[in-house]
Amino acid sequence: MSLRCEVLAIGTELLLGQVVDTNSAWIGGRLAEAGISCYYQAKVGDNHDRIVAALRAGLDRSDAVICCGGLGPTQDDITREAIAEVMGVGLRRDPAIEAGLRERFHGREVPVSNYRQADVPEGASPVLASTGTAPGLICPVGPKVVYAVPGVPSEMREMVGGPIVEDLVARAGEQATVRSRFLRVWGVPESKVAEMVAPRFDVLEGGPTTIAFLASVTEGVRVRITTRAVGPEAPAQATAALDAEEAALRELLGGSVGGVDDDGLEVVVGRLLAQAGLRLAVAESLTGGLVCARLTSVPGASTWFAGGVVSYTPEVKRSVLGVGPGPVVSSEAAQEMAAGVRQALGADVAMSLTGVAGPDTQEDRPVGTLFVGLDLQGDVVARGAVLGGGSRQLVRERAATYALDLLRQRLLQAH
Amino acid sequence: MSLRCEVLAIGTELLLGQVVDTNSAWIGGRLAEAGISCYYQAKVGDNHDRIVAALRAGLDRSDAVICCGGLGPTQDDITREAIAEVMGVGLRRDPAIEAGLRERFHGREVPVSNYRQADVPEGASPVLASTGTAPGLICPVGPKVVYAVPGVPSEMREMVGGPIVEDLVARAGEQATVRSRFLRVWGVPESKVAEMVAPRFDVLEGGPTTIAFLASVTEGVRVRITTRAVGPEAPAQATAALDAEEAALRELLGGSVGGVDDDGLEVVVGRLLAQAGLRLAVAESLTGGLVCARLTSVPGASTWFAGGVVSYTPEVKRSVLGVGPGPVVSSEAAQEMAAGVRQALGADVAMSLTGVAGPDTQEDRPVGTLFVGLDLQGDVVARGAVLGGGSRQLVRERAATYALDLLRQRLLQAH
Repeated sequence: MSLRCEVLAIGTELLLGQVVDTNSAWIGGRLAEAGISCYYQAKVGDNHDRIVAALRAGLDRSDAVICCGGLGPTQDDITREAIAEVMGVGLRRDPAIEAGLRERFHGREVPVSNYRQADVPEGASPVLASTGTAPGLICPVGPKVVYAVPGVPSEMREMVGGPIVEDLVARAGEQATVRSRFLRVWGVPESKVAEMVAPRFDVLEGGPTTIAFLASVTEGVRVRITTRAVGPEAPAQATAALDAEEAALRELLGGSVGGVDDDGLEVVVGRLLAQAGLRLAVAESLTGGLVCARLTSVPGASTWFAGGVVSYTPEVKRSVLGVGPGPVVSSEAAQEMAAGVRQALGADVAMSLTGVAGPDTQEDRPVGTLFVGLDLQGDVVARGAVLGGGSRQLVRERAATYALDLLRQRLLQAH
Repeated sequence: MSLRCEVLAIGTELLLGQVVDTNSAWIGGRLAEAGISCYYQAKVGDNHDRIVAALRAGLDRSDAVICCGGLGPTQDDITREAIAEVMGVGLRRDPAIEAGLRERFHGREVPVSNYRQADVPEGASPVLASTGTAPGLICPVGPKVVYAVPGVPSEMREMVGGPIVEDLVARAGEQATVRSRFLRVWGVPESKVAEMVAPRFDVLEGGPTTIAFLASVTEGVRVRITTRAVGPEAPAQATAALDAEEAALRELLGGSVGGVDDDGLEVVVGRLLAQAGLRLAVAESLTGGLVCARLTSVPGASTWFAGGVVSYTPEVKRSVLGVGPGPVVSSEAAQEMAAGVRQALGADVAMSLTGVAGPDTQEDRPVGTLFVGLDLQGDVVARGAVLGGGSRQLVRERAATYALDLLRQRLLQAH
């Protein structure tokens, strides 16, 4: 059984929602990479008794707890005292840390409260950071251990990524690796994806490899493959297991797999355009620049993206893009917008979006109405859809994703 | 003593650090506003026994647990089963939810796995959302209660912000209210804002009202006023305290307060344009549509926003906007872009952005270089800046915020 380590984030601001705890997610990722199991993460406020209780609960369930935050110089930084209570020891003032504090203040007087940061539970070892004043702590509790690191992300990362993960791996004895890979699927709902890959659940049952699903409006469905391997060959074994499972899933999912890991829809579309040697122009109405912004988030987009026109008002649609009289939320207008922007910008391929983002209906069309026009070197088509309701922002994001996926499919067909 | 409610986020992806749990922070904020104490938040993976143990531990410590995630249609969504075990009951299939699922699929066949979402623990009540297929659950456990909501933020927010907080407040009996208000400041660094409002800290010391600062690239500096009141008059008292503190802070901050609460820079700019009866056009290069997308996120933007041109390549800058020969990352090009887009779109006011988003330098200019052009009814100016480094996305967001704040200042001067 692998070593188990929990994460405890400390700070009332985390519970009140004033600060989002991103540290725990980062620590979780590093533990997984190092093959340490992390089954539980928690947040508590700056309260002595609750921190002590949370540390004890963590040590009951697991071999180690990394606690993050509450090591600063102010009155509400009480992590040191709570750990000392769990260890059943007092605090000692560490002369080396004290000297380091004086050095950091470059001769200026050190605020008295800062000296609290030199207090260390008896039997604990400090972990010094290259920046910041708060040292981390490695605190043995019988055969188990509590680590304390500051809540400042850069200091926390330096300590956890270095000495703390090293200490954990040394304690674990065995070398285990956990790796994940994502297959990106668009245009298929999560439940349908789950049905398509259902046979794999039986095959994988009880083994070291698992699959799971994550769905979001802008990211489509991500199928996560996670595998665990032990021993000196663990990294190579883990990679082989991921490769094998990816192949099996691609067999079941076919062409709906658009990419791997960080390949967003905009990356995939850009790759298809670059491969075909085509340049894209985009005309946006309801999405108001979202599609262009997503495309230009890809480094090097200028090789396959010419630009776009945000034709937000009917007048701009008509004057700049040559859209004729008649309704602007229509299949015809979408086709005219696509053809118009391709010509105006001298591009090979063009896409257009017109529709109703809300909150009000437009031209008697309901919120969520979308028409996408595609012009592939003069071959112009349009597709209409009514996306689900929801907020204006959600409708706009769904529309951008829907249109980019249509373009992806069209480019795949064409080449 | 106030009612205690914990938050349990469910999903292996949260522990592995593949997704950052922002839901718990949001829920924590809402609980604080409603005067419900939240002393503990936790994350567990998609594992039946550990979800059950975490729910039991939460119910031991607190009166209620909101658990978030694991309600989807796939095999790893097991929250329903875990809650049923904690309640000591079985699952029943809810015919109303089943009918709702069929309706959502508009006559298409419902994937069999989706029907799992119609399973409800005996004795629990479903909470239906306006979007999405997974209903939330209110699950009494003796005198205590477990709430379950989907992990999709929009669905979670609708359910927690509405029926779940209402149910908690009804259970709490005592009416305590915690309210916050944000004053939005742009163009002034956080440390300077803190200095300007420093006198208020002494006045507020020991009272029920506090102030704090939050700074971000896209949001500027937000000065948060928080106050707490108890008793039947609590809501009115809290509002009066917020009004008084807002007035005191505005006295100190003067014209740098651009708005309140959700007034983003785009909302403030839109308001100024609408008041002046002017219509804006935007030409974007390095930001690639981000500025247009932010402006059109405001409902009713079409009354003051004509549209934009994303002139991503030099050719489009020259052909569509009439930018002359010479470098495109320059003050001259920014002025030409602004004048060109104002003319092309028939607008009153125009703004342009050209610069270097990275990762590579361009025309020997470093990453972070920005030129903003402003054309107010024919009066054309440009301003250059070198924004700090960072990722491509960070540079683009900083550039958009910088330009929108320049436009805000210019509109304030002009009218």
